[in-house]
Amino acid sequence: MQFTSEQRLDDGVLEREFTLGEIPGILWTPASAPAPLILLGHPPLGLRKMYPRLVARARHSAADGFATATIELPGSGDRPRLPAAEQALADLRRAMEAGEPVSDEIIDALILPLVDKAVPEWQAALDALLSLPEIGGPVGYSGGVISIGIRLAVVEPRISAAGLFAGSFVPRAMFEEARQVTIPLHVLLQWDDEGNDRQVALDLFDAFGSKEKTLHANMGGHTGVPQFAGDDAAQFFTRHLK
Amino acid sequence: MQFTSEQRLDDGVLEREFTLGEIPGILWTPASAPAPLILLGHPPLGLRKMYPRLVARARHSAADGFATATIELPGSGDRPRLPAAEQALADLRRAMEAGEPVSDEIIDALILPLVDKAVPEWQAALDALLSLPEIGGPVGYSGGVISIGIRLAVVEPRISAAGLFAGSFVPRAMFEEARQVTIPLHVLLQWDDEGNDRQVALDLFDAFGSKEKTLHANMGGHTGVPQFAGDDAAQFFTRHLK
Repeated sequence: MQFTSEQRLDDGVLEREFTLGEIPGILWTPASAPAPLILLGHPPLGLRKMYPRLVARARHSAADGFATATIELPGSGDRPRLPAAEQALADLRRAMEAGEPVSDEIIDALILPLVDKAVPEWQAALDALLSLPEIGGPVGYSGGVISIGIRLAVVEPRISAAGLFAGSFVPRAMFEEARQVTIPLHVLLQWDDEGNDRQVALDLFDAFGSKEKTLHANMGGHTGVPQFAGDDAAQFFTRHLK
Repeated sequence: MQFTSEQRLDDGVLEREFTLGEIPGILWTPASAPAPLILLGHPPLGLRKMYPRLVARARHSAADGFATATIELPGSGDRPRLPAAEQALADLRRAMEAGEPVSDEIIDALILPLVDKAVPEWQAALDALLSLPEIGGPVGYSGGVISIGIRLAVVEPRISAAGLFAGSFVPRAMFEEARQVTIPLHVLLQWDDEGNDRQVALDLFDAFGSKEKTLHANMGGHTGVPQFAGDDAAQFFTRHLK
């Protein structure tokens, strides 16, 4: 892990860009150290595009005493494209524009290779981040592609709690993995999410094996998550990581 | 409204029993006055039996700066029985013990007369409570028989926000009333509630006309609401009544 830039934000949060091999990432740390860590998931739109929302989440978490970090997803930003996923995305768009149902094959081709490639990268990032003296204590995962969160919750024992956003296409195979999740979960659902089948989201919530799992459903579309929903998620992490 | 007893609880909350005509009730006020008011709904099991849970909710609310009050429901406690509701309750128990579905007729007979009789009583209590100098500001309604909460939210303009518990039988007619609700709602659902059909609860949540409505679903049965769910509800009221 190599730090490539460093700036102090006006609220005292230290923001550092880094590379992990060829993968770019960003680490935010609060003044109080060592701090527990929340990994910030995000949709595969590229870190640069996602930066405003990521830094807002990072500041909010820092105010609660958490360090946060994120890395570029495979195929996003300046990283090499994933040709199979690009093809699946084109198929998905075509299906949605034609008003056709999105087939399981398209969803599998879009999501499963992304999960297979991304999860070991997040684990490698975790290795590097946890070796820093300013990071300590338990780790949470928050948001982003829900299937990446599910796989991480199953395979990565250092993650103690996860806040998931029921807002992306979920391969059927992930339902089986969801049954194996046992860590506390906080699941956010936008009730009228145009890109998300509500019943699938409810079925997925039902499938999670965790004894403590909470569903917070709010009104509005995919990007309409109300401010107070973020506050509730913050309290979930404070309860489990502090 | 006649106060019949008064005691100061160890956390400084003033607890006063009162009668409103023939209806007994309890008022809890925090040290800071005037305070906004939350009406504490409860199942029709009698105030005496419900007292431990009610006083816990009252103390929690007082710590957040709220006054709380509750009244005995028609047919409960020492109040005269409602013969039609008693018959419906016997029919309900017989159906449940026999493992039969509970018919719409039984649910209507159990709930609708209770709502019709209880709601004007809560409104009369509100008249009396809002005339006290130690009560001021907006009013919330919390918990109890959800159909009473729905009707109150529709007919009582002084109630600005409601926290409802999706945990009781709901007559089909109440779905129509739910569509007329416009105040902010915080709906609690116990995912594995043995006495509550999950799909009916989700459909009811969907039916509410409110632009701001949030569903919080937690694991466990009817009485297994986790502590943090109470904290989330408290924040909802703080957001809307302060």
